[in-house]
Amino acid sequence: MHTRRIISLITDFGDKSGYVGVLKGVILSVNPDCQIVDISHQIAPQDREEAAVVLKNTYSFFPPESIHLVVVDPDVGSKRKPILIESGTHWFVGPDNGVLSCALLMEGFRKVWEITNTRYFLPRVSTTFHGRDIFAPVAAHLSLGVPAHDLGKELKHCVRLEALEPEIVQGVIKGRVVYADHFGNVISNISYNLFNAVVADKPFRITIGEAVIETISPSYAGAREGEVIALFGSSQQLEIAVRNGNCQRTLQVEKGAEISVRPLT
Amino acid sequence: MHTRRIISLITDFGDKSGYVGVLKGVILSVNPDCQIVDISHQIAPQDREEAAVVLKNTYSFFPPESIHLVVVDPDVGSKRKPILIESGTHWFVGPDNGVLSCALLMEGFRKVWEITNTRYFLPRVSTTFHGRDIFAPVAAHLSLGVPAHDLGKELKHCVRLEALEPEIVQGVIKGRVVYADHFGNVISNISYNLFNAVVADKPFRITIGEAVIETISPSYAGAREGEVIALFGSSQQLEIAVRNGNCQRTLQVEKGAEISVRPLT
Amino acid sequence: MHTRRIISLITDFGDKSGYVGVLKGVILSVNPDCQIVDISHQIAPQDREEAAVVLKNTYSFFPPESIHLVVVDPDVGSKRKPILIESGTHWFVGPDNGVLSCALLMEGFRKVWEITNTRYFLPRVSTTFHGRDIFAPVAAHLSLGVPAHDLGKELKHCVRLEALEPEIVQGVIKGRVVYADHFGNVISNISYNLFNAVVADKPFRITIGEAVIETISPSYAGAREGEVIALFGSSQQLEIAVRNGNCQRTLQVEKGAEISVRPLT
Repeated sequence: MHTRRIISLITDFGDKSGYVGVLKGVILSVNPDCQIVDISHQIAPQDREEAAVVLKNTYSFFPPESIHLVVVDPDVGSKRKPILIESGTHWFVGPDNGVLSCALLMEGFRKVWEITNTRYFLPRVSTTFHGRDIFAPVAAHLSLGVPAHDLGKELKHCVRLEALEPEIVQGVIKGRVVYADHFGNVISNISYNLFNAVVADKPFRITIGEAVIETISPSYAGAREGEVIALFGSSQQLEIAVRNGNCQRTLQVEKGAEISVRPLT
Repeated sequence: MHTRRIISLITDFGDKSGYVGVLKGVILSVNPDCQIVDISHQIAPQDREEAAVVLKNTYSFFPPESIHLVVVDPDVGSKRKPILIESGTHWFVGPDNGVLSCALLMEGFRKVWEITNTRYFLPRVSTTFHGRDIFAPVAAHLSLGVPAHDLGKELKHCVRLEALEPEIVQGVIKGRVVYADHFGNVISNISYNLFNAVVADKPFRITIGEAVIETISPSYAGAREGEVIALFGSSQQLEIAVRNGNCQRTLQVEKGAEISVRPLT
Repeated sequence: MHTRRIISLITDFGDKSGYVGVLKGVILSVNPDCQIVDISHQIAPQDREEAAVVLKNTYSFFPPESIHLVVVDPDVGSKRKPILIESGTHWFVGPDNGVLSCALLMEGFRKVWEITNTRYFLPRVSTTFHGRDIFAPVAAHLSLGVPAHDLGKELKHCVRLEALEPEIVQGVIKGRVVYADHFGNVISNISYNLFNAVVADKPFRITIGEAVIETISPSYAGAREGEVIALFGSSQQLEIAVRNGNCQRTLQVEKGAEISVRPLT
């Protein structure tokens, strides 16, 4: 009965104003037995790409049938659609603005639904807070077992963020910094698989800001204090870090900064 | 049996020191099946008014019989009373310093109790942390079904914050900024109902800092990038915002700043 | 059956990147009925001592059989061991780097185990995120009742942080600031018991930064606005505070600053 009992939350609401508490109150009003799990409420305001990256790096560690609710919604009140994506193993609820892109990239991907059935909304829908009035109650009803086809109608197309994938230019991987975590570790959009496909077992040169790195470290612990290293971090993306230091500050790089990998031959 | 199973929390404890974790440990020691929901722990230190506003804007989205625990308690260790308010639909626990004011304004409001029965406190009560020693265990016992009259004695009077209501001076609404949220949206104490009662369908002029606004926008999405707009936000209070920007920084207004609404005729 | 159902979390992960959400997803994948409680995710990056102090001040307020998971782990990927400590009343899981020191100081202390049974790890263990790959799934299996001896082998020695205890030099207590909380209250490593043993009922002088204090206040509320006071705070440690103010900013003291107590006679 409770196979869809978990709802995870990603928002740009911060932790001060109680907006997250309101989402939880609405969810628990519909399904008091729901397990609500915060992933992050510190997405930079209106930053759809950051939300998409955090979702991509986290959702797969949740149990099958979990529902992932993402409310980063700068166009609330416009005609952007509320959508539900059913991937076969997980459920994704949010605005149709690309924040759920990772669900579209999965193998076994199934279906996208436009959420239209007002029976599952709050009685009064504002123009400013669909998280509370539409997404939270819909996710909660979904967690009670309401079938997707009862929430709305199937969609053929939805918005996908292309910016999450690096380019290959003349054999060089041209990637970008997608975020810096709390430790100042700088995470790129270059995956382990892409790196291996391009570099194979040749020597290589990674360039970011003024740093040049020519080896991949197995872990933070192997490095010298203060050394700038490259490694494949916990999300299997190329990451630049400083042992016991803050790499973002050391290299002075921001989100969007270029990071390239050039095979040497 | 579990009708009062939810306890929501509003405090000024921040998220670093573990004080919130201690509240939760105490609650779960009394009632391991309790659903604890964080509303905000980022109330400005000792700011009773901010706590009162956040509670007012959030509690009604929780299920009936929820217990709302507010610990913003600058006078802990003095003679200020610990109180319980029973509104008929919700329960409120906290110090008698005005943080629970919204519960006193409700229709169908019922009763205030002074919490005196030490049987429901921790065995040893400090002079510095009644959140842990009194409020948390009392809320937890309440969630188990302990009746209000067993917790203490009924009170005739309790502290109410008047500052939450705007004044009307010669037909002009003189309101104030009660807080700025995480997006920099500036929330006033002027409600939709008051605005309508005073302005009716006349033209009007809203003044805040150096900004003058003469229309109400239906949502953020309708505005031009960077435009300063007025709207009735998710809590039905007059709100000033900048489309995809930070209004508080744009207008340089702080909490307490004046915001006026003048009908034009 | 559910006697070990609570898992508390202390990390230095912050609240932005979703690393905490990943821990929770992993735990709930193993034990969907687990109650997960955040104590703090704002430990200063890699600060083992701060983690140890926050754990010491909080764990005892949780129900017996709670599991406390601490992931402050600068040496992840090196040979530092993952350990489990069984205290008789509580369980502690984390790296063997001193963060669990408080568990070693308890009366009735029982056993330390090195966690080695890969059957309870995630299938693939990274070199950078043992919180996700080892500690979270092990804590979750423990919460299901897996016996300690099935997780690994008993250890004779483990790392203990000595820095948490003050020195006594010629009758003077030489303590240190262990942290400043969200209110700016400055907490020392000098306990009520040590203070009483050294000072007894003699007059005394407390010195910290440029402040000299010769009385212990019963609570914050008794002091004048802005006065610097000493008291035994909620964790029974000597604490320096400013009534309705931020003591850390007033005195300009940082973590590690000296605080001394000299009996006068």
